[in-house]
Amino acid sequence: MDQLVIAGKTYSSRLLVGTGKYKDFEQTRLAIEASGAEIVTVAIRRTNIGQDPNQPSLLDAVPPSKYTYLPNTAGCYTADDAIRTLRLARELLDGHDLVKLEVLGDPQSLYPNVVETIKAAEILVKDGFKVMVYTSDDPIVAKQLEDIGCVAVMPLASLIGSGMGILNPWNLQIIIDRLKVPVVVDAGVGTASDAAIAMELGCDAVLMNTAIAGAQNPVLMAGAMKKAVEAGREAFLAGRMAKKMYQASPSSPTGGMIGS
Amino acid sequence: MDQLVIAGKTYSSRLLVGTGKYKDFEQTRLAIEASGAEIVTVAIRRTNIGQDPNQPSLLDAVPPSKYTYLPNTAGCYTADDAIRTLRLARELLDGHDLVKLEVLGDPQSLYPNVVETIKAAEILVKDGFKVMVYTSDDPIVAKQLEDIGCVAVMPLASLIGSGMGILNPWNLQIIIDRLKVPVVVDAGVGTASDAAIAMELGCDAVLMNTAIAGAQNPVLMAGAMKKAVEAGREAFLAGRMAKKMYQASPSSPTGGMIGS
Amino acid sequence: MDQLVIAGKTYSSRLLVGTGKYKDFEQTRLAIEASGAEIVTVAIRRTNIGQDPNQPSLLDAVPPSKYTYLPNTAGCYTADDAIRTLRLARELLDGHDLVKLEVLGDPQSLYPNVVETIKAAEILVKDGFKVMVYTSDDPIVAKQLEDIGCVAVMPLASLIGSGMGILNPWNLQIIIDRLKVPVVVDAGVGTASDAAIAMELGCDAVLMNTAIAGAQNPVLMAGAMKKAVEAGREAFLAGRMAKKMYQASPSSPTGGMIGS
Amino acid sequence: MDQLVIAGKTYSSRLLVGTGKYKDFEQTRLAIEASGAEIVTVAIRRTNIGQDPNQPSLLDAVPPSKYTYLPNTAGCYTADDAIRTLRLARELLDGHDLVKLEVLGDPQSLYPNVVETIKAAEILVKDGFKVMVYTSDDPIVAKQLEDIGCVAVMPLASLIGSGMGILNPWNLQIIIDRLKVPVVVDAGVGTASDAAIAMELGCDAVLMNTAIAGAQNPVLMAGAMKKAVEAGREAFLAGRMAKKMYQASPSSPTGGMIGS
Repeated sequence: MDQLVIAGKTYSSRLLVGTGKYKDFEQTRLAIEASGAEIVTVAIRRTNIGQDPNQPSLLDAVPPSKYTYLPNTAGCYTADDAIRTLRLARELLDGHDLVKLEVLGDPQSLYPNVVETIKAAEILVKDGFKVMVYTSDDPIVAKQLEDIGCVAVMPLASLIGSGMGILNPWNLQIIIDRLKVPVVVDAGVGTASDAAIAMELGCDAVLMNTAIAGAQNPVLMAGAMKKAVEAGREAFLAGRMAKKMYQASPSSPTGGMIGS
Repeated sequence: MDQLVIAGKTYSSRLLVGTGKYKDFEQTRLAIEASGAEIVTVAIRRTNIGQDPNQPSLLDAVPPSKYTYLPNTAGCYTADDAIRTLRLARELLDGHDLVKLEVLGDPQSLYPNVVETIKAAEILVKDGFKVMVYTSDDPIVAKQLEDIGCVAVMPLASLIGSGMGILNPWNLQIIIDRLKVPVVVDAGVGTASDAAIAMELGCDAVLMNTAIAGAQNPVLMAGAMKKAVEAGREAFLAGRMAKKMYQASPSSPTGGMIGS
Repeated sequence: MDQLVIAGKTYSSRLLVGTGKYKDFEQTRLAIEASGAEIVTVAIRRTNIGQDPNQPSLLDAVPPSKYTYLPNTAGCYTADDAIRTLRLARELLDGHDLVKLEVLGDPQSLYPNVVETIKAAEILVKDGFKVMVYTSDDPIVAKQLEDIGCVAVMPLASLIGSGMGILNPWNLQIIIDRLKVPVVVDAGVGTASDAAIAMELGCDAVLMNTAIAGAQNPVLMAGAMKKAVEAGREAFLAGRMAKKMYQASPSSPTGGMIGS
Repeated sequence: MDQLVIAGKTYSSRLLVGTGKYKDFEQTRLAIEASGAEIVTVAIRRTNIGQDPNQPSLLDAVPPSKYTYLPNTAGCYTADDAIRTLRLARELLDGHDLVKLEVLGDPQSLYPNVVETIKAAEILVKDGFKVMVYTSDDPIVAKQLEDIGCVAVMPLASLIGSGMGILNPWNLQIIIDRLKVPVVVDAGVGTASDAAIAMELGCDAVLMNTAIAGAQNPVLMAGAMKKAVEAGREAFLAGRMAKKMYQASPSSPTGGMIGS
């Protein structure tokens, strides 16, 4: 059976989703259910996962007993900041060590700072974390992150929250061809076909947040994304027909017609 | 509920498929089942639907009791030829009047001949046929075909059998915006994301043959296409997030962080 | 030497320009000079070429002694209207028979009505006109227009006045491959690179108006377009390097380094 | 007047060219003359600039009295290697300190190794070099290289020697918007329109080698590139018309026609 394996654990769904930007935890819950996701990312500095016992907690809406939590470092611009945030998350989540590292370059573009990302990844891997790492579509950096020991590499499709889709499929292709760990396209997916394209390229999974939470009907879009990821994966496995630019062979041979 | 209505009849599936190019009728049957299609096109001049009682017949593998047949005029290069072919089909199929008209320009490109297509459509509509018509992505011609009384207009995405996907989404957009009858993207779909994109543009349905039959694993691809069409339709209905080219808003506001 | 031949006459420039949409005739004159164009189109129903002797006339700013006039049928939506307009032009211009035929589908899209265009072309050619004809990028229609006897076929790149560039280079490629008369890309060019791309595809010339007249600095843009058309033509003749998608050969061989 | 300023020196041409991959030094000379380039890059480890007094020398064909030499580190995969190479170049060229730094990730993709590039840039700038630096289209890394003190930043359009053109114009746009030093698109240009597009985006210059040397007629292509770079620059300065996706305004107003 076709399953996703990250850090030794097996998942049926190849769609990972964020938990932010929803109207309320109820909408979060419904959208995540519709998406079929088994792994959810949590912006540890922005989400109440028990830090404030008097406020609603994500832990109730999206229970860790049911979903694999992936604490992330959204809002961190230095290696130090990201490391500190993930150590805090590990404490809050009772030793949970599967994390998503992201170190961003600036708050306007949210493009990754790959130098700081590499630095943080080295320290976190040595510190026993299982690091899934957000990065640019630079294939050399992607390989360096694998060599450091990250358990998944997550290149962007386009800028976080942009919904621009996959701007450079060639770079993604190189990354997919070269890496052994799962490649998860993260950031930039805007609609269902973007997710399908990522999977057709041969990515192992797709991670998104705004594309679902920012749709006019997030729950319906979550279901669309579930199908799109599955469609893209199956199309990849099925082996698409060759493209022929100009000269098409007729849709049926012209010889041997019946009744003509 | 979200259903496709063509010529007054209601369908749950928005994927129409061809019946040609498969290894054998068994593979045809399995792929069509996996696709969930309810309407199947049949190249009347190339397919045994009873003309030859000593050969296997499509009627057994894909029974008209279960599927809506759409006889087509593949291989016709003049209005006369197409009209003659569809009249033959009506006889063979006991008065069946829902048909797919295609009049092609030449056997190399298989691009439609719109002048002959318009001529044939006029005669066929007057003759009582319910005409679904294959055409180019010319929005003026598409409207003329609707005005003639065709029950669905089916512009190409790219050349028949090319698998090049949607080459000119802008023209399709104009057609979708202007026509009242269903717009079915026909020809050129190569893989799952192409089908999703067509539906996200607002097309009512997608028709394909080679993309499924020409895949390495046609049955798996048929299932992928089913999901892709549904994903694209749901994404269209869900209302995708806006694209933002350069400046992304952060995935969560930078103010009000918990624990920072 | 590399020259453009239309209806037996030879031109050095492969850039044809419109005369409308400028601030005044002085700007028209300066932009056309900077463009190096030898053929200028004139919207016969909208431009004073002597109909009104009390108003400034294009004939003074852009003298027909210096430029080849190409009267066009902008604003015509039927064959009859276009034919009438060009017969009027022939009178006004003392028997001038080189004309640009355009019959549009509607005033919103300005997309050509190919059925009416074909009808008008047949009559005009029989009537002795040398017809350069604006059309869609439909390769079958383009060939029909050549077969009718048009002296040049002018497919759109995208909608008139849209500046969207070449939306479907594949269709243009088929047209270029199949036609013997000059193929002139007309409509849709927005900036210099669009013109270069058209020429690199193998078009014989490019016709534009808004891209120059609608630029912030029309005269500077006219010069840019002159260079772009020449650059594209020379690149076509020079034979570009092959594209290599993924695996590049090193920019110099790694063996035989000096001093390494 | 519109001039390029790099490290305080002024240039009229915005096209920089390589000196490798030509048939012989005579072809190199002719192509560079046709290109109008004033700055030429020299792969110091692969080109005889006097190291071997018994072989033909580039110094004779392309005299440094006439061209600004830009020694580069093609073939270097570590910071150390690149630094050593440029120090050698400085000796060979009598203290010449304007250099092109490139540190590549691997010999197959030739994608830059940005971590080693940053390391080398820091040391070279401190060592008094004026560093023009080849890099990916990562906007954060590009800014870091400017902050280090590089005199020009040279992001790729696509892989070296690929001729794929500009794969991600959005990233280039961010770099152009953010940097104060000249941005020179380097690597990936395949034909004239690619160079025009780079300049239209607002790049300060374009550097290429294979696109010229690998054309069937390198000298003709060199002239095409000269015009394309100028065309793109002028189009950028002229301010292109706005793109309008769907609804075009008519190319002339429908009211006030003469003689209609």
